[in-house]
Amino acid sequence: MGRVHSQAWRSVGAFYDLPVRPALAALAGRSRDHAVAAARRFGWAAVESDWKDLIDRDDVAIVDVCTPGDSHAEIAIAALTAGKHVLCEKPLANTVAEAEAMAAAARSAAARGVRSMVAFNYRRVPAVALARRLVADGRLGEIRHVRAIYLQDWLVDPEHPLVWRLRRDKAGSGALGDIGAHVVDTVAFVTGQQVTGVSALTETFVNERPLPDAPGTGAVTVDDAALFIGRLTGGALASFEATRYATGRKNSLRLEINGSLGSLSFDFEAMNELWFHDATLPGAEGGFRKIIVTDPGHPYLDAWWPPGHGLGYEHTFTHEVRDFLAAIAAEEDPTPSFEDGLRVQQVLAAVERSAAEESRWTAV
Amino acid sequence: MGRVHSQAWRSVGAFYDLPVRPALAALAGRSRDHAVAAARRFGWAAVESDWKDLIDRDDVAIVDVCTPGDSHAEIAIAALTAGKHVLCEKPLANTVAEAEAMAAAARSAAARGVRSMVAFNYRRVPAVALARRLVADGRLGEIRHVRAIYLQDWLVDPEHPLVWRLRRDKAGSGALGDIGAHVVDTVAFVTGQQVTGVSALTETFVNERPLPDAPGTGAVTVDDAALFIGRLTGGALASFEATRYATGRKNSLRLEINGSLGSLSFDFEAMNELWFHDATLPGAEGGFRKIIVTDPGHPYLDAWWPPGHGLGYEHTFTHEVRDFLAAIAAEEDPTPSFEDGLRVQQVLAAVERSAAEESRWTAV
Amino acid sequence: MGRVHSQAWRSVGAFYDLPVRPALAALAGRSRDHAVAAARRFGWAAVESDWKDLIDRDDVAIVDVCTPGDSHAEIAIAALTAGKHVLCEKPLANTVAEAEAMAAAARSAAARGVRSMVAFNYRRVPAVALARRLVADGRLGEIRHVRAIYLQDWLVDPEHPLVWRLRRDKAGSGALGDIGAHVVDTVAFVTGQQVTGVSALTETFVNERPLPDAPGTGAVTVDDAALFIGRLTGGALASFEATRYATGRKNSLRLEINGSLGSLSFDFEAMNELWFHDATLPGAEGGFRKIIVTDPGHPYLDAWWPPGHGLGYEHTFTHEVRDFLAAIAAEEDPTPSFEDGLRVQQVLAAVERSAAEESRWTAV
Amino acid sequence: MGRVHSQAWRSVGAFYDLPVRPALAALAGRSRDHAVAAARRFGWAAVESDWKDLIDRDDVAIVDVCTPGDSHAEIAIAALTAGKHVLCEKPLANTVAEAEAMAAAARSAAARGVRSMVAFNYRRVPAVALARRLVADGRLGEIRHVRAIYLQDWLVDPEHPLVWRLRRDKAGSGALGDIGAHVVDTVAFVTGQQVTGVSALTETFVNERPLPDAPGTGAVTVDDAALFIGRLTGGALASFEATRYATGRKNSLRLEINGSLGSLSFDFEAMNELWFHDATLPGAEGGFRKIIVTDPGHPYLDAWWPPGHGLGYEHTFTHEVRDFLAAIAAEEDPTPSFEDGLRVQQVLAAVERSAAEESRWTAV
Repeated sequence: MGRVHSQAWRSVGAFYDLPVRPALAALAGRSRDHAVAAARRFGWAAVESDWKDLIDRDDVAIVDVCTPGDSHAEIAIAALTAGKHVLCEKPLANTVAEAEAMAAAARSAAARGVRSMVAFNYRRVPAVALARRLVADGRLGEIRHVRAIYLQDWLVDPEHPLVWRLRRDKAGSGALGDIGAHVVDTVAFVTGQQVTGVSALTETFVNERPLPDAPGTGAVTVDDAALFIGRLTGGALASFEATRYATGRKNSLRLEINGSLGSLSFDFEAMNELWFHDATLPGAEGGFRKIIVTDPGHPYLDAWWPPGHGLGYEHTFTHEVRDFLAAIAAEEDPTPSFEDGLRVQQVLAAVERSAAEESRWTAV
Repeated sequence: MGRVHSQAWRSVGAFYDLPVRPALAALAGRSRDHAVAAARRFGWAAVESDWKDLIDRDDVAIVDVCTPGDSHAEIAIAALTAGKHVLCEKPLANTVAEAEAMAAAARSAAARGVRSMVAFNYRRVPAVALARRLVADGRLGEIRHVRAIYLQDWLVDPEHPLVWRLRRDKAGSGALGDIGAHVVDTVAFVTGQQVTGVSALTETFVNERPLPDAPGTGAVTVDDAALFIGRLTGGALASFEATRYATGRKNSLRLEINGSLGSLSFDFEAMNELWFHDATLPGAEGGFRKIIVTDPGHPYLDAWWPPGHGLGYEHTFTHEVRDFLAAIAAEEDPTPSFEDGLRVQQVLAAVERSAAEESRWTAV
Repeated sequence: MGRVHSQAWRSVGAFYDLPVRPALAALAGRSRDHAVAAARRFGWAAVESDWKDLIDRDDVAIVDVCTPGDSHAEIAIAALTAGKHVLCEKPLANTVAEAEAMAAAARSAAARGVRSMVAFNYRRVPAVALARRLVADGRLGEIRHVRAIYLQDWLVDPEHPLVWRLRRDKAGSGALGDIGAHVVDTVAFVTGQQVTGVSALTETFVNERPLPDAPGTGAVTVDDAALFIGRLTGGALASFEATRYATGRKNSLRLEINGSLGSLSFDFEAMNELWFHDATLPGAEGGFRKIIVTDPGHPYLDAWWPPGHGLGYEHTFTHEVRDFLAAIAAEEDPTPSFEDGLRVQQVLAAVERSAAEESRWTAV
Repeated sequence: MGRVHSQAWRSVGAFYDLPVRPALAALAGRSRDHAVAAARRFGWAAVESDWKDLIDRDDVAIVDVCTPGDSHAEIAIAALTAGKHVLCEKPLANTVAEAEAMAAAARSAAARGVRSMVAFNYRRVPAVALARRLVADGRLGEIRHVRAIYLQDWLVDPEHPLVWRLRRDKAGSGALGDIGAHVVDTVAFVTGQQVTGVSALTETFVNERPLPDAPGTGAVTVDDAALFIGRLTGGALASFEATRYATGRKNSLRLEINGSLGSLSFDFEAMNELWFHDATLPGAEGGFRKIIVTDPGHPYLDAWWPPGHGLGYEHTFTHEVRDFLAAIAAEEDPTPSFEDGLRVQQVLAAVERSAAEESRWTAV
């Protein structure tokens, strides 16, 4: 995460006209050696081995929190309190309580002109932003169905070690919080609606894995997969899935939406494409249209290359920091806010409660 | 349904070498005029206006039941009792009780050498049969995930009339029984596993529709869409969806299965294609393979055209009657049996109960 | 070919309302045993072992010529002279001279109300017919580019025997006449334009193959592949290719057309899909639209199944005989005419001349 | 071009471990104001308004030539003579004579340890590099067919102004040199074979266009499209096309190769995907496999993100400068060499001669 954030901060000013151009002031990392190496590689001017020292620096106006979820609340709240704008990786926190504290801190900071944003970078995929625009413009009509799934396969191998993402104390949850959070947020972003309740199943397929830095094995304490159905505020039926066991699916964040006037379909594995069906066209000509989202008129695309010269994963972060900087300069609150991050956290918590109670319907 | 069944009976003997070749003896229909016209068109030798007369005929050895679901039980049981082999359209019945009675009748008939089969024709899509073969051969390993959805859009228009499929008394249920039944059966067929329990949501988006043959409107008394999650006997997580409101999706029966050794993906809108990921190949060469299921080595394909000359919807029925006739000649019980049909019915009933009780987990 | 034609004749009346309904009067085949078996299988009422006897029959009004190309001219001309309507398989003939004689016979027959048609069945793929409709309606504007290729792979295996299609005396040419003829005709059909000249390459990759019915090998005397570029009457640039060595491509007849207002793309391996780009839509929404050509408003589709229930290769022949019968009943000349078949033959001849003379530009 | 090259030079050291890390010393541009703005934006330390001054600088070890083609020879030869390593944009030159002079200069410079490379960046698409690896490893067997086309549509609008790329004096040729050069080089790279001769057609569809910086119109003096067929050194048949009039195709560089053991297919509009058919697998499992080329084992991918997190157009340049720097450090000649660029130029010249002489076969 640090690498791609660094690249975004370094590159954004070369492509977007910004009222302020960021300088890479200082990088904090617990291992000073690693931090020094990373700083040299990415062009950070200084290094701190304690994040508190970073917050104390006068030459730091923005803090970008890329740590595991268990430290988000402490760092972000301290930074906001110190008057630093904060961009915080997702999920916002490991618990609803932490997320609530962060949202409260963000509200209070906003009153003082200090901005905060949670880094749901998939909102900044141009095709996803175009999807939102089409929905907001009413092109789908009333939304009836949403399917949002996020498939990876990096845990299919039972010998994959017990990294921090597989430990509840560090990561909060497993596939649910890591990638399920993304699809929950993406649905909220694209539809403008919230999940009102869920019925959920979770599963851990492999319970013991080799320790990453010692002999022996340890217990996997998070979900490997989460599957849930729910309803949105507008009445749509929605299904969600997050798994790291979808053999052959590398990073397949898929969204399909059916409305009374049209439909949309997206898969991050083909991130420059959005499929749009416009049911208001004559039926005999109707079909899902593969929009290659690389035209100057598409979201974020005015800054880049000629049509058909696609963007990559990296650029979602470039767009993210662009929007964050633009909001700071405009003295506006950027989105997704910590409040948005809290709402995602509340959905994740409802999913875990439902799964723990035989998939009982659980209001969010 | 009658048209495509008739075409299958007429065509099967021209393409498959069968121990018996069917003759189209008689067609029964409540409207004699319609039946006479249909018989002339499709080559049925005689016409009856009461199905009971059909069963009484000596020249009828097989009864193919294509009526709405509310009459399946009565007709099928009578035919079996009279010693006629029975092919019955899906869903097997409108209630579990009826399906149980039919399964009992089928067991009893089988003991007398009288065969029965429920017409889940999607089992006879060559790509679906190939999927089953790959799973049965262990090519997917342990199955972890199943996604099975069936999307249509013919009810998006609120002016679509209140046809019999939208009335509970005739159809039993809506999208759930009509197309949800297909995906439940297809999952059972391909995985060889059963659904053990579900949490479900159902919805009726448009509650009043124009009457088809009178002024005014009437109440839609079935579901427009059903969404449910569950588990399979082998431990996999499974999600299901059936809807007639998926704008732009015409007949998208989709199946995706992820196992420890591989994955499969299928969409009936491209019915001659099966996507297969073999995770045992070297990683750098790995990918979902688009198998065009038209080779002589593929299921059912030895009878047809050169490779790449695809089949259509119609041929799933040709394959179905071929298998039915082959089983009769071999004095074996064909599949899917009425027992299989009953199991599907039990899943549908569990879905309806769960949906009625706030998506409570409901064992099948 | 005989199988699929027979099935079309048997089925057409069951699906289309026709002023006349065909009866399968008699089948001619040099091997009486084979003919008897085929007649029984497909329901032909009688058998002849000499095609001349077939033409003499009073109960035969239509002759459908499915023999290899070297006998087309003799049979078709005799049948037309005898007052029989003639449907003749493609390519129309093995030489331009034969095709000219056939076209002359057809003109003369037409004056007497006797109809003829060449069986370029791919015109009757609904997606191809829809493509023509879009072009004819001006939806593509001025056509600039056409790419028409036909890829198969059944000769990749050097052990494939020396069947009649690989012998010049029987087949006239190789991939060029067998499948290249189809793409030349399809371009003429969809664009309404003719090829005005070509530069061509042909190649035979494997020169000796096992004899099919004797020990030893024999010489391949036809092309394995043909590649040519040309211009259309309207000024478009066009490229063509036909090969039986495109490993992994089973029956990939592909067409792509770019015009000033839009584009089309088609591949027979997904025969129910037509891709259409409408450049008059706002740019940010533009994209190739996958039209699933199964709606009642699509060509030929009013007779078949609900949307999304695809057709197969077989149905192109059902449509073909439907159109032929409709034209006969309407006392109109059906298309493609023998004149159309002659034009294709002239293109093929120009390709062969060009290839023989170092790909010299050769006017058609 | 300057923007994407700058971004590559700035980013390469952050992702790849390089023996030398580039510093952005100086940017030359005829307009000092533009150059200053660009330098500030992309981090170039200094600015020159004459490229000769750039070459004179002691702090410049590498010259990256991004000017229109008419100045490539002069600049590149001067830089090589001055002992600077040279990366030169494609096409190498506007004429064969210039390209020959450049190749001679490159040979002479190489003898002194001065390196040169032509910037055919599509070689550095990971999927294209993987295609080459598969061919080089013999996975395709003997190559029989190559189809290489490059489709854009930015000239469909007749009001698009007469930019320098449409003037022969600046650009040498039109679609042929701009994008046709890419596909010619890509074929050479992937197959390891050269074009031995061609038959060609070129066309200019719109002959007058608005002047970009003055009232009135001017003549388009280059081709809008080029279409040619040829043979490769190994005997394969090859077809090529380059056009800026393929409505709806934004940047569709497509390559399809059929060999005796397998096939490959690629389209830059989905740049992270390579389709591979392995004909040595059992036939019933065969199919084109969509390899998502984002795994650590794929070319260039060890430096980037987790699997499934795709790259963009920009990264082809990052890879290009990485390889260039690595070759300089290793004291090896990088590829594609100026000799490779010359060979492409010879093919383009043969195409133009053939097109001028009625598509006569023209040896390269």
